[in-house]
Amino acid sequence: MKILITAGGTSEKIDDVRFITNSSSGRLGAVMATTFLQAGHEVVYVTTKNAVKPAGITPLLISSTADLARTLTTLLETQHFDAVIHSMAVSDFTLASSFSKESFVAEFSAELKKNQDVATSFAALAQNQPATGKKISSNTDNLVLILEKTPKVIQLIKKIQPTTRLIGFKLLVDVAPEELIAVAAAARKKNDASLVIANDLTEVGSDNHHAYFVGATGVVAEAFTKKEIATTLVSLLSKEEL
Amino acid sequence: MKILITAGGTSEKIDDVRFITNSSSGRLGAVMATTFLQAGHEVVYVTTKNAVKPAGITPLLISSTADLARTLTTLLETQHFDAVIHSMAVSDFTLASSFSKESFVAEFSAELKKNQDVATSFAALAQNQPATGKKISSNTDNLVLILEKTPKVIQLIKKIQPTTRLIGFKLLVDVAPEELIAVAAAARKKNDASLVIANDLTEVGSDNHHAYFVGATGVVAEAFTKKEIATTLVSLLSKEEL
Repeated sequence: MKILITAGGTSEKIDDVRFITNSSSGRLGAVMATTFLQAGHEVVYVTTKNAVKPAGITPLLISSTADLARTLTTLLETQHFDAVIHSMAVSDFTLASSFSKESFVAEFSAELKKNQDVATSFAALAQNQPATGKKISSNTDNLVLILEKTPKVIQLIKKIQPTTRLIGFKLLVDVAPEELIAVAAAARKKNDASLVIANDLTEVGSDNHHAYFVGATGVVAEAFTKKEIATTLVSLLSKEEL
Repeated sequence: MKILITAGGTSEKIDDVRFITNSSSGRLGAVMATTFLQAGHEVVYVTTKNAVKPAGITPLLISSTADLARTLTTLLETQHFDAVIHSMAVSDFTLASSFSKESFVAEFSAELKKNQDVATSFAALAQNQPATGKKISSNTDNLVLILEKTPKVIQLIKKIQPTTRLIGFKLLVDVAPEELIAVAAAARKKNDASLVIANDLTEVGSDNHHAYFVGATGVVAEAFTKKEIATTLVSLLSKEEL
């Protein structure tokens, strides 16, 4: 099979030196890539500069959510994949605008004078503004960052390549298994995925990694380590029914 | 000599999975540590989980600016260092409070009704609030993050250990050399440092790294690679006059 794996976590720029990112190490992605290679499959690997890398693959490196969308679009439009394992932790939000305390108060006051309404004034300040490009001065007591939603990259995948099988991931923090599985089942349906692998941050370590494999019929498998997640995926994807 | 080196970049938590960080790789710190070790000096090394590590040293790992302040305080109160090379990129800001678009508009409106003043309303919302502890829901169009200044860790160093020699760093982005050197000279004076190493992000690569060594008398040395920065520092610190 030819498999596309994404792993690691995207970063959204605040300025030239600061950014918002997440705690994904890319370790599971590296274990999955290695396991698929060892089982004789072809792997295309998309990850980030700081993520753990699998041996024996030259990864495609991306940084922001917008980068990821561009790279996946190119790959999916030009090559056929038997499955896409989308384990990258993608930022839900990216910077829309940023203010010092002083500029926020001044611009908010000006908007409020114009339109007399807090929601409308907020909307005006949340308009995407060209990034400052340089390092934001630290010469203020407060910075205000207004973030806006990123486009859902996972929804591009089946849109561009309806015949591939999509494996998604859902990470929550310290919730009941029932809730985690229900949220994963909803995400599976919404994103037209074959499987969503559901995990809770409180049960993810450097090797141990508890995961439920949520398919069309409910939980179809469970794993307790990164290696088990990888071997279970190789086996499930090798079957015709998935 | 016994040298304390800090390297890498601090991270400030937004929630359990997201954080604000900076692009410091810790590579210069690792080269400096190796160079001081090879020259026969003792090195205590403070860095972050994701930074490049020097061989042959067990680093002390920190994550946030508050962590760094605690660790440096302990070290400086219990051991004497001939010099502290503070190359860690420390966040100027940490999260004070966070809001969905809806909660920001509601809380800002309520404050405004109470006190009729935008600056006062903003100040109320910028009050440090207990972190949510879990993953902020992405079920909103906008997130608002209000950041507040972190205490200046560099100013702790000479306060706790007046007899050590402090080497600071100043990173700016795409400015004229004269401006960079002037800002570094001001930082040297303010933080009671022996030297400030001034660099511009546009002249920093994986090995190449242009730096001005700004001392009491102005620019006392210049270097063009990480290794040159390290060997210049070993030589300057070995002289009595610094």
